[in-house]
Amino acid sequence: MKIAILGTGMVGNALGTKLVQIGHQIMMGSRTANSDAGQEWLRLVCGKAQIGTFTDAAAFGEIILDCTNGANSLAALHQAGAANLRGKILVQISNPLDFSKGMPPTLTVCNTDSLGEQIQREFPDTRVVKALNTVNCDLMVQPSLVPGGHDLIICGNDAGAKREVTARLVEWFGWKKENIIDLGDITASRGTEMYLALWVRLWGVLGTPHFNIKIVRGG
Amino acid sequence: MKIAILGTGMVGNALGTKLVQIGHQIMMGSRTANSDAGQEWLRLVCGKAQIGTFTDAAAFGEIILDCTNGANSLAALHQAGAANLRGKILVQISNPLDFSKGMPPTLTVCNTDSLGEQIQREFPDTRVVKALNTVNCDLMVQPSLVPGGHDLIICGNDAGAKREVTARLVEWFGWKKENIIDLGDITASRGTEMYLALWVRLWGVLGTPHFNIKIVRGG
Repeated sequence: MKIAILGTGMVGNALGTKLVQIGHQIMMGSRTANSDAGQEWLRLVCGKAQIGTFTDAAAFGEIILDCTNGANSLAALHQAGAANLRGKILVQISNPLDFSKGMPPTLTVCNTDSLGEQIQREFPDTRVVKALNTVNCDLMVQPSLVPGGHDLIICGNDAGAKREVTARLVEWFGWKKENIIDLGDITASRGTEMYLALWVRLWGVLGTPHFNIKIVRGG
Repeated sequence: MKIAILGTGMVGNALGTKLVQIGHQIMMGSRTANSDAGQEWLRLVCGKAQIGTFTDAAAFGEIILDCTNGANSLAALHQAGAANLRGKILVQISNPLDFSKGMPPTLTVCNTDSLGEQIQREFPDTRVVKALNTVNCDLMVQPSLVPGGHDLIICGNDAGAKREVTARLVEWFGWKKENIIDLGDITASRGTEMYLALWVRLWGVLGTPHFNIKIVRGG
């Protein structure tokens, strides 16, 4: 499958590398066509992928994974271009974290709005599914790093897109279907993004980013 | 033990009733000395407790449980009086939820501040421990409603107060010590209060408020 990875950071690297390993055609996009980070990743995957601009990658991908820095996501997606995103599924992974005032980070948008919603509003013809943003990138591609059942929460306005993303997360990364919880429409991004305020503190207390939550339900 | 319950809503009722059942001396406080809700609760516990104003209750209690509505917590605590709260542990349970614009609720404070912090700033001589705010009130007093291990997250500036609150949650309500996670100082209230944005959505999807999260850690 032709998959676009937008962003050359840790998340883009982890997802891109895994998807190359299992045989997909990947183009990693960044602001410039030949970024240092992009070239470094290309060497890491022995040249078995392509790099380009956000525009190139979005045009290439049948499905788009938004692995940009949350502070720059909207700008990156505008560079990618609405026409290249039209009708496609955008897996919106980035969180609107602001580290500029030190640790712990705050959110640039929350409570009455979210990055997931902003992006869906800005690109109404794109099938935005917020997903994977509640776990560390190592865990995104290898959920077995954390033992037992633990849950991934997704949301979005397009039920078909959520079904497809669920199937891909199972197929690509080994998530179990029963551990993927559909939280509702894209406004539920507020919940999964605001959870980051708790996630970041738990990271500090647990001393590892390799953790997740399991939702346990009463009778 | 003499325990003050501030607030006559569902949370105050659940905690007060349980604490009366296990033999503690409880005074439930509200804005007025003889509120209808307070009298109704008093009948429910067969008169085996007292009711009074926030001031009466805070003066009575060796430990104070803040079960007020989050929108009114600061006002209620001011009515309780700094002198009556001085040096005491305040278990700060309420969340700053605003239901005035319908469902889902938003938070009246978040991201760069929290209700827990506001209260600790306003009452610097009170030992504020944010606790129990991440679970439904039935679960607060009966964690076994949800099977298996699941976690409660507390925070506060006073390590001794957190140890005592942990011991009380074990003794009073049956929480397991290993499931009580100390998230750090009172600024961590941002994390547990902002989690409510996720909690409220999960409530909708799961169809029951009887659920909780278990933090699962990798190796």
